[in-house]
Amino acid sequence: MKKEELTHHIQTRKSYLCVGLDSEKDKLPPHLLKEKDPVFSFNKQIIDATLEHCIAYKFNIAFYESLGSAGWESLSKTLKYIPESHFTIADAKRGDIGNTSGKYARTYFKTYDFDAVTVNPYMGKDSIMPFLEYNGKWTIILALTSNPGAKDFQVNGKPPLYQKVLTRASQWGTPENIMFVAGATRLEELRKIREICPGHFLLVPGVGTQGGDLQQLSRHGLNSDGGMLVNVSRKIIFSNYDRDFAQSAGVRAAQYHQKMKQIMEDYYTQSLKNE
Amino acid sequence: MKKEELTHHIQTRKSYLCVGLDSEKDKLPPHLLKEKDPVFSFNKQIIDATLEHCIAYKFNIAFYESLGSAGWESLSKTLKYIPESHFTIADAKRGDIGNTSGKYARTYFKTYDFDAVTVNPYMGKDSIMPFLEYNGKWTIILALTSNPGAKDFQVNGKPPLYQKVLTRASQWGTPENIMFVAGATRLEELRKIREICPGHFLLVPGVGTQGGDLQQLSRHGLNSDGGMLVNVSRKIIFSNYDRDFAQSAGVRAAQYHQKMKQIMEDYYTQSLKNE
Repeated sequence: MKKEELTHHIQTRKSYLCVGLDSEKDKLPPHLLKEKDPVFSFNKQIIDATLEHCIAYKFNIAFYESLGSAGWESLSKTLKYIPESHFTIADAKRGDIGNTSGKYARTYFKTYDFDAVTVNPYMGKDSIMPFLEYNGKWTIILALTSNPGAKDFQVNGKPPLYQKVLTRASQWGTPENIMFVAGATRLEELRKIREICPGHFLLVPGVGTQGGDLQQLSRHGLNSDGGMLVNVSRKIIFSNYDRDFAQSAGVRAAQYHQKMKQIMEDYYTQSLKNE
Repeated sequence: MKKEELTHHIQTRKSYLCVGLDSEKDKLPPHLLKEKDPVFSFNKQIIDATLEHCIAYKFNIAFYESLGSAGWESLSKTLKYIPESHFTIADAKRGDIGNTSGKYARTYFKTYDFDAVTVNPYMGKDSIMPFLEYNGKWTIILALTSNPGAKDFQVNGKPPLYQKVLTRASQWGTPENIMFVAGATRLEELRKIREICPGHFLLVPGVGTQGGDLQQLSRHGLNSDGGMLVNVSRKIIFSNYDRDFAQSAGVRAAQYHQKMKQIMEDYYTQSLKNE
Protein backbone atom coordinates (compact mmCIF):
# COMPACT_ATOMS: atom_id res chain seq x y z
CA MET A 1 0.00 0.00 0.00
CA LYS A 2 1.44 3.34 -1.04
CA LYS A 3 1.60 6.40 1.20
CA GLU A 4 -1.21 8.33 -0.54
CA GLU A 5 -3.50 5.37 -0.12
CA LEU A 6 -2.66 4.93 3.55
CA THR A 7 -3.16 8.64 4.17
CA HIS A 8 -6.44 8.54 2.25
CA HIS A 9 -7.73 5.72 4.46
CA ILE A 10 -6.74 7.59 7.60
CA GLN A 11 -8.43 10.81 6.48
CA THR A 12 -11.66 9.20 5.28
CA ARG A 13 -12.01 6.61 8.05
CA LYS A 14 -10.84 9.16 10.64
CA SER A 15 -8.83 6.53 12.44
CA TYR A 16 -5.16 5.73 12.86
CA LEU A 17 -5.80 2.65 14.96
CA CYS A 18 -3.78 -0.49 14.37
CA VAL A 19 -5.14 -3.63 16.00
CA GLY A 20 -2.39 -5.94 17.24
CA LEU A 21 -3.22 -9.59 16.59
CA ASP A 22 -1.05 -10.88 19.46
CA SER A 23 -3.27 -13.93 19.43
CA GLU A 24 -1.54 -16.03 22.06
CA LYS A 25 -3.07 -19.49 21.91
CA ASP A 26 -3.07 -20.01 25.70
CA LYS A 27 -5.18 -16.89 26.14
CA LEU A 28 -7.92 -17.62 23.58
CA PRO A 29 -11.53 -17.94 24.78
CA PRO A 30 -11.80 -21.60 25.83
CA HIS A 31 -14.72 -22.46 23.55
CA LEU A 32 -12.51 -21.79 20.49
CA LEU A 33 -10.02 -24.49 21.40
CA LYS A 34 -12.40 -27.12 19.95
CA GLU A 35 -12.10 -25.57 16.50
CA LYS A 36 -9.70 -26.90 13.89
CA ASP A 37 -7.61 -23.74 13.81
CA PRO A 38 -8.44 -21.79 16.98
CA VAL A 39 -6.03 -18.94 16.25
CA PHE A 40 -7.52 -18.30 12.82
CA SER A 41 -11.10 -18.56 14.15
CA PHE A 42 -10.22 -16.01 16.81
CA ASN A 43 -8.51 -13.63 14.39
CA LYS A 44 -11.35 -13.87 11.87
CA GLN A 45 -13.94 -12.82 14.42
CA ILE A 46 -11.72 -10.05 15.79
CA ILE A 47 -11.20 -8.71 12.27
CA ASP A 48 -14.92 -8.79 11.46
CA ALA A 49 -15.65 -6.86 14.66
CA THR A 50 -12.92 -4.22 14.34
CA LEU A 51 -12.57 -3.65 10.60
CA GLU A 52 -14.57 -0.42 10.41
CA HIS A 53 -12.66 1.13 13.31
CA CYS A 54 -9.04 0.53 12.35
CA ILE A 55 -6.79 1.02 9.39
CA ALA A 56 -4.14 -1.60 10.10
CA TYR A 57 -3.50 -5.01 11.62
CA LYS A 58 -0.18 -5.92 13.18
CA PHE A 59 0.87 -9.54 13.68
CA ASN A 60 3.46 -10.06 16.37
CA ILE A 61 5.25 -12.98 14.75
CA ALA A 62 6.45 -14.47 18.06
CA PHE A 63 2.95 -15.69 18.86
CA TYR A 64 2.68 -17.55 15.55
CA GLU A 65 6.25 -18.80 15.33
CA SER A 66 6.05 -20.40 18.78
CA LEU A 67 3.32 -22.76 17.49
CA GLY A 68 5.57 -24.26 14.83
CA SER A 69 4.31 -24.76 11.29
CA ALA A 70 0.66 -24.71 12.44
CA GLY A 71 1.22 -21.14 13.62
CA TRP A 72 2.46 -20.09 10.20
CA GLU A 73 -0.65 -21.62 8.65
CA SER A 74 -2.88 -19.59 10.98
CA LEU A 75 -0.91 -16.48 10.11
CA SER A 76 -1.19 -17.10 6.38
CA LYS A 77 -4.94 -17.68 6.51
CA THR A 78 -5.49 -14.58 8.65
CA LEU A 79 -3.43 -12.41 6.36
CA LYS A 80 -5.45 -13.50 3.33
CA TYR A 81 -8.66 -12.78 5.20
CA ILE A 82 -7.81 -9.09 5.72
CA PRO A 83 -9.23 -6.93 2.89
CA GLU A 84 -6.97 -4.72 0.77
CA SER A 85 -8.43 -1.64 2.43
CA HIS A 86 -6.33 -2.40 5.51
CA PHE A 87 -2.60 -2.05 6.02
CA THR A 88 -0.82 -5.18 7.31
CA ILE A 89 2.30 -5.27 9.46
CA ALA A 90 4.55 -8.22 10.32
CA ASP A 91 5.99 -7.24 13.68
CA ALA A 92 9.01 -9.48 13.31
CA LYS A 93 11.88 -7.22 14.44
CA ARG A 94 14.22 -9.04 12.07
CA GLY A 95 17.67 -8.05 10.83
CA ASP A 96 20.77 -9.95 9.70
CA ILE A 97 23.75 -9.50 7.38
CA GLY A 98 22.76 -8.33 3.91
CA ASN A 99 22.16 -11.55 1.95
CA THR A 100 20.35 -13.09 4.91
CA SER A 101 18.17 -10.05 5.53
CA GLY A 102 17.17 -10.50 1.89
CA LYS A 103 15.63 -13.81 2.89
CA TYR A 104 13.68 -12.21 5.71
CA ALA A 105 12.47 -9.51 3.32
CA ARG A 106 11.32 -12.21 0.92
CA THR A 107 9.56 -14.04 3.75
CA TYR A 108 7.39 -11.09 4.70
CA PHE A 109 6.92 -9.43 1.31
CA LYS A 110 6.71 -12.50 -0.97
CA THR A 111 6.06 -15.75 0.93
CA TYR A 112 3.57 -13.71 2.98
CA ASP A 113 2.30 -10.58 1.33
CA PHE A 114 2.53 -8.03 4.17
CA ASP A 115 2.57 -4.29 3.51
CA ALA A 116 5.22 -3.72 6.16
CA VAL A 117 7.70 -5.45 8.42
CA THR A 118 9.44 -4.22 11.56
CA VAL A 119 13.25 -4.47 11.62
CA ASN A 120 15.97 -4.02 14.22
CA PRO A 121 18.68 -1.48 13.33
CA TYR A 122 21.52 -2.88 15.50
CA MET A 123 23.34 -4.45 12.53
CA GLY A 124 23.25 -1.26 10.45
CA LYS A 125 22.60 -0.30 6.86
CA ASP A 126 23.23 -3.54 4.96
CA SER A 127 20.83 -5.34 7.31
CA ILE A 128 18.03 -2.92 6.35
CA MET A 129 18.59 -2.23 2.65
CA PRO A 130 17.23 -5.57 1.31
CA PHE A 131 13.83 -4.70 2.79
CA LEU A 132 13.79 -1.38 0.97
CA GLU A 133 14.11 -3.01 -2.43
CA TYR A 134 10.43 -3.95 -2.51
CA ASN A 135 8.35 -1.36 -4.29
CA GLY A 136 5.18 -0.32 -2.45
CA LYS A 137 6.32 -2.04 0.74
CA TRP A 138 7.35 -0.48 4.05
CA THR A 139 10.22 -1.07 6.44
CA ILE A 140 9.46 -0.06 10.01
CA ILE A 141 12.70 0.49 11.92
CA LEU A 142 12.87 0.24 15.71
CA ALA A 143 13.95 3.59 17.09
CA LEU A 144 12.53 3.97 20.59
CA THR A 145 10.58 1.06 22.03
CA SER A 146 8.06 1.22 24.88
CA ASN A 147 9.51 -1.49 27.13
CA PRO A 148 11.64 -0.93 30.27
CA GLY A 149 14.77 -2.21 28.46
CA ALA A 150 14.67 0.82 26.13
CA LYS A 151 16.67 2.58 28.84
CA ASP A 152 19.58 0.12 28.57
CA PHE A 153 20.96 1.24 25.21
CA GLN A 154 18.43 3.27 23.18
CA VAL A 155 18.39 6.40 25.34
CA ASN A 156 22.13 6.30 26.14
CA GLY A 157 24.87 8.28 24.48
CA LYS A 158 25.14 11.80 23.09
CA PRO A 159 23.05 12.00 21.04
CA PRO A 160 21.10 9.02 22.40
CA LEU A 161 21.26 5.90 20.24
CA TYR A 162 17.61 6.14 19.13
CA GLN A 163 18.30 9.62 17.72
CA LYS A 164 21.36 8.35 15.85
CA VAL A 165 19.15 5.62 14.39
CA LEU A 166 16.55 8.17 13.25
CA THR A 167 19.09 10.53 11.73
CA ARG A 168 21.10 7.88 9.95
CA ALA A 169 18.40 5.40 8.94
CA SER A 170 16.06 8.06 7.59
CA GLN A 171 18.73 8.61 4.89
CA TRP A 172 18.54 4.99 3.73
CA GLY A 173 15.09 5.40 2.24
CA THR A 174 12.29 7.95 2.13
CA PRO A 175 9.11 8.74 4.07
CA GLU A 176 7.42 6.68 1.33
CA ASN A 177 9.06 3.41 2.41
CA ILE A 178 10.41 3.87 5.95
CA MET A 179 8.49 4.27 9.20
CA PHE A 180 9.88 4.27 12.73
CA VAL A 181 8.73 2.60 15.93
CA ALA A 182 8.25 5.32 18.54
CA GLY A 183 7.29 4.09 22.02
CA ALA A 184 4.33 6.01 23.37
CA THR A 185 5.31 5.99 27.00
CA ARG A 186 7.85 8.79 26.45
CA LEU A 187 6.15 11.99 25.37
CA GLU A 188 9.16 14.27 25.40
CA GLU A 189 11.01 11.81 23.23
CA LEU A 190 8.09 11.51 20.83
CA ARG A 191 8.28 15.27 20.33
CA LYS A 192 12.01 14.91 19.61
CA ILE A 193 11.37 12.09 17.15
CA ARG A 194 8.85 14.23 15.28
CA GLU A 195 11.41 17.03 15.18
CA ILE A 196 14.06 14.77 13.57
CA CYS A 197 11.58 13.06 11.23
CA PRO A 198 8.73 15.47 10.47
CA GLY A 199 7.53 13.55 7.44
CA HIS A 200 7.82 9.90 8.47
CA PHE A 201 5.01 7.72 9.66
CA LEU A 202 5.47 6.53 13.24
CA LEU A 203 4.24 3.20 14.56
CA VAL A 204 3.36 3.88 18.17
CA PRO A 205 2.99 0.93 20.54
CA GLY A 206 2.31 1.06 24.26
CA VAL A 207 -1.04 2.87 24.30
CA GLY A 208 -3.15 0.06 25.70
CA THR A 209 -1.76 -2.15 28.45
CA GLN A 210 1.45 -0.15 28.69
CA GLY A 211 -0.47 3.02 29.49
CA GLY A 212 0.46 5.73 26.97
CA ASP A 213 -2.02 8.62 26.75
CA LEU A 214 -3.64 8.81 23.33
CA GLN A 215 -4.50 12.50 23.35
CA GLN A 216 -1.08 13.65 24.48
CA LEU A 217 0.88 11.50 22.13
CA SER A 218 -1.30 12.38 19.16
CA ARG A 219 -0.64 16.05 19.81
CA HIS A 220 3.09 15.33 19.43
CA GLY A 221 2.90 12.72 16.72
CA LEU A 222 0.24 13.70 14.15
CA ASN A 223 1.24 15.50 11.00
CA SER A 224 -0.61 16.60 7.88
CA ASP A 225 -0.57 13.04 6.47
CA GLY A 226 -1.87 11.55 9.66
CA GLY A 227 1.64 10.29 10.20
CA MET A 228 0.87 7.83 12.98
CA LEU A 229 -0.33 4.31 13.43
CA VAL A 230 -1.25 3.74 17.05
CA ASN A 231 -1.18 0.09 17.97
CA VAL A 232 -3.37 -1.49 20.62
CA SER A 233 -3.19 -5.23 21.10
CA ARG A 234 -4.32 -6.93 24.32
CA LYS A 235 -6.61 -4.10 25.46
CA ILE A 236 -8.72 -4.77 22.39
CA ILE A 237 -8.38 -8.43 21.50
CA PHE A 238 -8.47 -9.82 25.03
CA SER A 239 -11.11 -7.55 26.51
CA ASN A 240 -13.08 -10.63 27.47
CA TYR A 241 -12.83 -14.41 27.15
CA ASP A 242 -16.48 -15.37 26.65
CA ARG A 243 -18.48 -16.25 23.57
CA ASP A 244 -19.02 -12.55 22.90
CA PHE A 245 -15.27 -11.78 22.94
CA ALA A 246 -15.39 -10.35 19.42
CA GLN A 247 -18.31 -8.05 20.11
CA SER A 248 -16.47 -6.83 23.17
CA ALA A 249 -13.30 -6.22 21.09
CA GLY A 250 -15.43 -4.28 18.60
CA VAL A 251 -16.74 -2.04 21.36
CA ARG A 252 -13.20 -1.32 22.58
CA ALA A 253 -11.99 -0.59 19.04
CA ALA A 254 -14.98 1.73 18.54
CA GLN A 255 -13.99 3.65 21.67
CA TYR A 256 -10.48 4.22 20.35
CA HIS A 257 -11.94 5.15 16.97
CA GLN A 258 -14.26 7.68 18.56
CA LYS A 259 -11.38 9.31 20.46
CA MET A 260 -9.25 9.41 17.32
CA LYS A 261 -12.05 11.02 15.31
CA GLN A 262 -12.31 13.74 17.91
CA ILE A 263 -8.54 14.23 18.12
CA MET A 264 -8.23 14.43 14.32
CA GLU A 265 -11.04 16.95 14.04
CA ASP A 266 -9.49 19.13 16.75
CA TYR A 267 -6.02 18.75 15.24
CA TYR A 268 -6.99 19.69 11.71
CA THR A 269 -9.27 22.53 12.83
CA GLN A 270 -6.36 23.87 14.85
CA SER A 271 -3.97 23.42 11.89
CA LEU A 272 -6.32 25.39 9.62
CA LYS A 273 -6.50 28.19 12.19
CA ASN A 274 -2.70 28.32 12.32
CA GLU A 275 -2.33 28.67 8.57
CA MET B 1 24.28 -28.76 26.79
CA LYS B 2 26.13 -27.48 29.83
CA LYS B 3 29.44 -25.65 29.71
CA GLU B 4 31.58 -28.53 31.04
CA GLU B 5 30.18 -30.79 28.36
CA LEU B 6 30.79 -28.27 25.59
CA THR B 7 34.33 -27.69 26.82
CA HIS B 8 34.88 -31.44 27.07
CA HIS B 9 33.84 -31.91 23.43
CA ILE B 10 36.15 -29.12 22.31
CA GLN B 11 39.13 -30.51 24.22
CA THR B 12 38.65 -34.14 23.15
CA ARG B 13 37.63 -33.49 19.55
CA LYS B 14 40.21 -30.71 19.25
CA SER B 15 37.86 -28.59 17.25
CA TYR B 16 35.87 -25.44 17.83
CA LEU B 17 34.29 -25.48 14.40
CA CYS B 18 30.62 -24.65 13.98
CA VAL B 19 29.12 -25.53 10.60
CA GLY B 20 26.50 -23.02 9.47
CA LEU B 21 23.56 -24.73 7.80
CA ASP B 22 22.64 -21.69 5.69
CA SER B 23 20.97 -24.12 3.34
CA GLU B 24 19.47 -21.71 0.85
CA LYS B 25 17.14 -23.71 -1.35
CA ASP B 26 18.07 -21.85 -4.57
CA LYS B 27 21.70 -22.85 -4.09
CA LEU B 28 21.28 -26.58 -3.47
CA PRO B 29 22.91 -29.05 -5.87
CA PRO B 30 20.33 -29.42 -8.66
CA HIS B 31 19.97 -33.20 -8.38
CA LEU B 32 18.53 -32.78 -4.86
CA LEU B 33 15.58 -30.75 -6.06
CA LYS B 34 13.82 -33.95 -7.14
CA GLU B 35 13.73 -35.18 -3.55
CA LYS B 36 10.69 -34.75 -1.33
CA ASP B 37 12.48 -32.44 1.12
CA PRO B 38 15.60 -31.17 -0.65
CA VAL B 39 16.74 -28.99 2.25
CA PHE B 40 16.63 -31.87 4.70
CA SER B 41 18.36 -34.24 2.24
CA PHE B 42 21.10 -31.67 1.79
CA ASN B 43 21.53 -31.05 5.52
CA LYS B 44 21.56 -34.75 6.33
CA GLN B 45 24.42 -35.41 3.94
CA ILE B 46 26.34 -32.35 5.10
CA ILE B 47 25.98 -33.47 8.71
CA ASP B 48 27.13 -37.02 7.94
CA ALA B 49 30.19 -35.63 6.18
CA THR B 50 31.18 -33.02 8.78
CA LEU B 51 30.16 -34.53 12.12
CA GLU B 52 33.62 -35.71 13.17
CA HIS B 53 35.19 -32.35 12.41
CA CYS B 54 32.88 -29.91 14.17
CA ILE B 55 31.32 -29.47 17.55
CA ALA B 56 28.29 -27.35 16.62
CA TYR B 57 25.72 -26.67 13.90
CA LYS B 58 24.16 -23.24 13.44
CA PHE B 59 20.89 -22.80 11.56
CA ASN B 60 20.37 -19.33 10.16
CA ILE B 61 16.61 -19.21 10.57
CA ALA B 62 16.07 -16.78 7.67
CA PHE B 63 16.76 -19.53 5.13
CA TYR B 64 14.11 -21.80 6.66
CA GLU B 65 11.53 -19.15 7.50
CA SER B 66 11.52 -17.85 3.93
CA LEU B 67 10.18 -21.22 2.74
CA GLY B 68 7.04 -20.98 4.85
CA SER B 69 5.84 -23.96 6.90
CA ALA B 70 7.79 -26.41 4.70
CA GLY B 71 10.98 -24.68 5.81
CA TRP B 72 10.13 -25.19 9.47
CA GLU B 73 9.54 -28.88 8.76
CA SER B 74 13.00 -29.17 7.17
CA LEU B 75 14.50 -27.39 10.15
CA SER B 76 12.74 -29.65 12.64
CA LYS B 77 13.82 -32.84 10.87
CA THR B 78 17.42 -31.64 10.59
CA LEU B 79 17.58 -30.67 14.25
CA LYS B 80 16.38 -34.14 15.30
CA TYR B 81 18.97 -35.73 13.05
CA ILE B 82 21.90 -34.05 14.85
CA PRO B 83 23.26 -36.30 17.64
CA GLU B 84 23.43 -35.08 21.25
CA SER B 85 27.20 -34.89 21.01
CA HIS B 86 26.84 -31.69 18.98
CA PHE B 87 25.80 -28.23 20.12
CA THR B 88 22.93 -26.66 18.15
CA ILE B 89 22.35 -22.95 17.56
CA ALA B 90 19.29 -21.19 16.20
CA ASP B 91 20.73 -18.07 14.61
CA ALA B 92 17.49 -16.14 14.84
CA LYS B 93 18.63 -12.74 16.16
CA ARG B 94 15.29 -12.34 17.92
CA GLY B 95 14.26 -9.89 20.64
CA ASP B 96 11.02 -8.20 21.66
CA ILE B 97 9.33 -6.81 24.79
CA GLY B 98 9.47 -9.20 27.74
CA ASN B 99 6.30 -11.30 27.40
CA THR B 100 6.81 -11.61 23.66
CA SER B 101 10.48 -12.55 23.92
CA GLY B 102 9.20 -15.33 26.18
CA LYS B 103 7.39 -16.72 23.15
CA TYR B 104 10.55 -16.62 21.06
CA ALA B 105 12.43 -18.36 23.87
CA ARG B 106 9.78 -21.05 23.94
CA THR B 107 9.98 -21.43 20.16
CA TYR B 108 13.68 -22.22 20.14
CA PHE B 109 14.04 -24.03 23.47
CA LYS B 110 10.72 -25.94 23.60
CA THR B 111 8.95 -26.10 20.21
CA TYR B 112 12.41 -26.76 18.76
CA ASP B 113 14.96 -28.11 21.19
CA PHE B 114 18.03 -25.99 20.35
CA ASP B 115 20.92 -25.60 22.79
CA ALA B 116 21.27 -21.91 21.99
CA VAL B 117 19.62 -18.99 20.24
CA THR B 118 21.10 -15.70 19.05
CA VAL B 119 19.36 -12.53 20.26
CA ASN B 120 19.58 -8.83 19.45
CA PRO B 121 20.30 -6.54 22.44
CA TYR B 122 18.74 -3.32 21.05
CA MET B 123 15.61 -3.60 23.22
CA GLY B 124 17.57 -4.15 26.43
CA LYS B 125 17.35 -6.35 29.49
CA ASP B 126 13.68 -7.39 29.54
CA SER B 127 13.99 -8.54 25.92
CA ILE B 128 16.81 -10.95 26.89
CA MET B 129 15.83 -12.24 30.34
CA PRO B 130 13.10 -14.67 29.18
CA PHE B 131 15.73 -16.60 27.21
CA LEU B 132 17.88 -16.96 30.34
CA GLU B 133 15.15 -18.72 32.26
CA TYR B 134 15.82 -22.02 30.50
CA ASN B 135 18.19 -24.21 32.46
CA GLY B 136 21.00 -25.74 30.42
CA LYS B 137 20.26 -23.45 27.45
CA TRP B 138 22.36 -20.62 26.06
CA THR B 139 21.59 -17.10 24.94
CA ILE B 140 24.03 -15.71 22.39
CA ILE B 141 23.86 -11.91 22.38
CA LEU B 142 24.96 -9.89 19.35
CA ALA B 143 27.82 -7.64 20.38
CA LEU B 144 29.98 -6.97 17.34
CA THR B 145 28.85 -8.41 14.02
CA SER B 146 31.05 -9.04 10.97
CA ASN B 147 28.99 -7.17 8.36
CA PRO B 148 29.73 -3.68 6.97
CA GLY B 149 26.75 -2.20 8.86
CA ALA B 150 28.49 -2.93 12.18
CA LYS B 151 30.13 0.47 11.70
CA ASP B 152 26.80 2.32 11.71
CA PHE B 153 25.95 1.95 15.39
CA GLN B 154 27.94 -0.84 17.09
CA VAL B 155 31.36 0.81 17.00
CA ASN B 156 30.07 4.34 17.68
CA GLY B 157 30.01 6.17 20.98
CA LYS B 158 32.35 6.32 23.95
CA PRO B 159 32.62 3.55 24.89
CA PRO B 160 31.39 2.06 21.61
CA LEU B 161 27.94 0.50 21.76
CA TYR B 162 29.23 -3.07 21.43
CA GLN B 163 31.36 -2.59 24.54
CA LYS B 164 28.37 -1.20 26.45
CA VAL B 165 26.45 -4.29 25.41
CA LEU B 166 29.22 -6.61 26.65
CA THR B 167 29.63 -4.80 29.96
CA ARG B 168 25.96 -4.52 30.72
CA ALA B 169 24.60 -7.76 29.26
CA SER B 170 27.29 -9.93 30.84
CA GLN B 171 25.69 -8.97 34.18
CA TRP B 172 22.30 -10.39 33.17
CA GLY B 173 23.50 -13.97 33.28
CA THR B 174 26.73 -15.91 33.65
CA PRO B 175 29.40 -17.44 31.40
CA GLU B 176 27.36 -20.63 31.86
CA ASN B 177 24.35 -19.31 29.94
CA ILE B 178 25.46 -16.27 27.93
CA MET B 179 27.76 -16.14 24.90
CA PHE B 180 28.48 -13.16 22.64
CA VAL B 181 28.70 -12.80 18.88
CA ALA B 182 32.12 -11.35 18.07
CA GLY B 183 32.74 -10.60 14.39
CA ALA B 184 36.03 -12.05 13.23
CA THR B 185 36.93 -9.36 10.76
CA ARG B 186 38.03 -7.01 13.55
CA LEU B 187 41.03 -8.40 15.41
CA GLU B 188 41.74 -5.45 17.65
CA GLU B 189 38.14 -5.45 18.74
CA LEU B 190 38.21 -9.18 19.39
CA ARG B 191 41.08 -8.58 21.77
CA LYS B 192 39.05 -5.89 23.50
CA ILE B 193 36.03 -8.22 23.75
CA ARG B 194 38.19 -10.90 25.39
CA GLU B 195 39.44 -8.28 27.83
CA ILE B 196 35.90 -7.31 28.87
CA CYS B 197 34.62 -10.89 28.92
CA PRO B 198 37.52 -13.22 29.70
CA GLY B 199 35.31 -16.15 30.65
CA HIS B 200 32.49 -16.04 28.08
CA PHE B 201 32.23 -18.19 25.03
CA LEU B 202 32.35 -16.19 21.80
CA LEU B 203 30.53 -17.16 18.63
CA VAL B 204 32.76 -15.91 15.85
CA PRO B 205 31.28 -15.55 12.36
CA GLY B 206 33.02 -14.18 9.30
CA VAL B 207 35.91 -16.64 8.97
CA GLY B 208 34.93 -18.21 5.65
CA THR B 209 33.49 -16.03 2.90
CA GLN B 210 33.94 -12.86 4.92
CA GLY B 211 37.68 -13.46 5.21
CA GLY B 212 38.67 -13.49 8.89
CA ASP B 213 42.02 -15.15 9.64
CA LEU B 214 41.61 -18.24 11.82
CA GLN B 215 45.07 -18.26 13.37
CA GLN B 216 45.05 -14.60 14.33
CA LEU B 217 41.59 -14.56 15.76
CA SER B 218 42.16 -17.76 17.73
CA ARG B 219 45.19 -16.18 19.34
CA HIS B 220 42.93 -13.39 20.61
CA GLY B 221 39.84 -15.43 21.32
CA LEU B 222 40.81 -18.78 22.86
CA ASN B 223 40.79 -19.23 26.62
CA SER B 224 41.33 -22.17 28.92
CA ASP B 225 37.82 -23.54 28.22
CA GLY B 226 38.24 -23.25 24.49
CA GLY B 227 35.95 -20.27 24.70
CA MET B 228 35.22 -19.93 21.00
CA LEU B 229 32.91 -21.37 18.41
CA VAL B 230 34.12 -20.37 14.97
CA ASN B 231 31.35 -20.53 12.43
CA VAL B 232 31.88 -21.30 8.75
CA SER B 233 28.84 -21.60 6.51
CA ARG B 234 29.04 -21.20 2.73
CA LYS B 235 32.76 -22.01 2.48
CA ILE B 236 31.96 -25.49 3.75
CA ILE B 237 28.41 -26.34 2.70
CA PHE B 238 28.56 -24.83 -0.79
CA SER B 239 32.08 -25.88 -1.74
CA ASN B 240 30.65 -27.61 -4.79
CA TYR B 241 27.25 -28.27 -6.38
CA ASP B 242 27.76 -31.74 -7.81
CA ARG B 243 26.73 -35.17 -6.61
CA ASP B 244 29.79 -35.28 -4.36
CA PHE B 245 28.93 -31.97 -2.65
CA ALA B 246 28.89 -33.61 0.79
CA GLN B 247 32.25 -35.28 0.36
CA SER B 248 33.63 -31.94 -0.70
CA ALA B 249 32.11 -30.25 2.36
CA GLY B 250 33.69 -32.94 4.51
CA VAL B 251 37.11 -32.20 3.03
CA ARG B 252 36.72 -28.50 3.74
CA ALA B 253 35.57 -29.16 7.30
CA ALA B 254 38.55 -31.48 7.81
CA GLN B 255 40.88 -28.70 6.70
CA TYR B 256 39.45 -26.33 9.30
CA HIS B 257 39.60 -29.12 11.88
CA GLN B 258 43.25 -29.80 11.12
CA LYS B 259 44.13 -26.10 11.50
CA MET B 260 42.21 -25.90 14.77
CA LYS B 261 43.97 -28.99 16.14
CA GLN B 262 47.32 -27.37 15.42
CA ILE B 263 46.27 -24.02 16.87
CA MET B 264 44.92 -25.65 20.03
CA GLU B 265 48.09 -27.69 20.52
CA ASP B 266 50.26 -24.60 20.10
CA TYR B 267 47.98 -22.53 22.34
CA TYR B 268 47.89 -25.00 25.21
CA THR B 269 51.60 -25.83 24.97
CA GLN B 270 52.27 -22.09 25.15
CA SER B 271 49.88 -21.68 28.08
CA LEU B 272 51.64 -24.47 29.98
CA LYS B 273 55.00 -22.80 29.36
CA ASN B 274 53.64 -19.51 30.71
CA GLU B 275 52.39 -21.09 33.93
